[in-house]
This record gives sequence, structure tokens and C-alpha cells, in this order.
Amino acid sequence: MLGKIEHLGIAVKDLEKANQTYEKLLGRKPYKSEAVESEHVMTSFFKSGKNKIELLAATHEDSAIAKYIEKRGEGIHHVAFNVKDIKAELKRLEKEGFKILNHEPKKGADNKWVAFIHPKSANGVLVELCQEIEE
Amino acid sequence: MLGKIEHLGIAVKDLEKANQTYEKLLGRKPYKSEAVESEHVMTSFFKSGKNKIELLAATHEDSAIAKYIEKRGEGIHHVAFNVKDIKAELKRLEKEGFKILNHEPKKGADNKWVAFIHPKSANGVLVELCQEIEE
Repeated sequence: MLGKIEHLGIAVKDLEKANQTYEKLLGRKPYKSEAVESEHVMTSFFKSGKNKIELLAATHEDSAIAKYIEKRGEGIHHVAFNVKDIKAELKRLEKEGFKILNHEPKKGADNKWVAFIHPKSANGVLVELCQEIEE
Repeated sequence: MLGKIEHLGIAVKDLEKANQTYEKLLGRKPYKSEAVESEHVMTSFFKSGKNKIELLAATHEDSAIAKYIEKRGEGIHHVAFNVKDIKAELKRLEKEGFKILNHEPKKGADNKWVAFIHPKSANGVLVELCQEIEE
């Protein structure tokens, strides 16, 4: 069972400008900025109530975010749901027929294990599962 | 200041099939189905932790959802944020330079006053503000 929306990922071209826009929109500053080298992206995170907004900008033309923007323009790239046991959820969802993109969870931004489900499985929505990494 | 993500709106072609998919994905049944006549859409709502997922299907070819799907395919259509005072937020955001689509909030699904902000103002994201209607 999936929990709350952990964050909403938004693909942007210019992270600095987008930070200014979202600071005005949400009424608060980003609380963190973090590079995810493996994905060639730079991110910034805002809190909005119990949820987070993650802005994602490509740092390399091979980044999935660069390709997404080239194809579809800026906008909502994915939605991430909190889960308690990411491996069990991946097994459950695979059994239910969802196309799993990462059978082995990988380290994502903001201290999380993450795995993605193909948008074709979920009406065009790229779904991320997130589990907090316990130190 | 915007609050939590009240819901995420997902444009789908076939509401019944999408209900089945999201029931499997989220691990729970929709808690409500509701027509929004003014928008020519049928909706269904799922809870996911403290957030909601709203599936939206067009009931008429003139519906914004039908046009969206024709242009971009199924997928995330909008994100709605909770606000305490929708009129005050609209004024604040207009002053900040956001393009407001509904200066006068309208009645949306799930007993809410709603108003939208143009995606061009927010890096391609259609943003909805939501305030619970007090009876």
C-alpha cells in the first residue's frame, strides 16, 4: 500500500529562476539543494505542508530531465509516494502487472531508496516509490 | 502561503479501467466518484496517506480533459494545494506576477472552492488552489 505523496518532481530548465518562481508560489524558500550525480540532475526541495516539491534541472544533455523537457517541455515529471518497505511493494506491484523500472532500489535525493514504475503502467504517470534510508 | 498537496489530478481516458489500475497501484479502493458538470468531467478520488489522487475523465469532447489528452496523452494534469484563504492567496499571487485563471473561486469537486493558475506562470505546471467550503 502506498502512503502520502512524498514529493512531486517538476522538470525545469533554469533551476535558479524556477527557485525564485516557486519561492513566490509556495511562499517559502527551498530548504535544500542537492546534486544527484548518477542522474545528471541538480535538485532543490521546498516544503509544502506535509509534502515536498522537488525541482529538477539537467546538468548534462544525456539526463532524463533534459530529454523530457526537449520532448514535452517543462512540467510535472513524476510523483513519489512514501512506502514502508520498498522491496515488498515492488514485488506486490510486479505481481499486479506493473512494469518496474528498477528491480533493485537505488539511492535517490534526500536520503531515500527509490524505484520507478513505467508511466505506461499508470496512465502516463511516472511513479516513484520512496523509502527513507535508516542510518 | 500554500499548504499540503490537497490532490493530484490525473487525466485518464477510461475512468473504470483507470480505477482498477489505481486501486492496484495505491492498494485501496476509490472513496468517492463525482461528476463536475461545469467541467464536463467525471472524477474518482483515492486517499494516499494525507493526500488524494483524483482521476479525471471527460464526459464531453469540449472538456478541458479531452483536449489535454488529445494534445499530450494521459498523465498528471494538475496539482492542487490546500489554502486557508483562497481569495487572499489569489491576490498575493497576482501581485507576485502569476497569471490567475479564475479571479473568482468556483465550486470544484469534493466540496471545495477552487481557482487555477496558468501553467506558463509555474514552469508548465497547472496549479489549483483549494479551500474547503464551510457549510
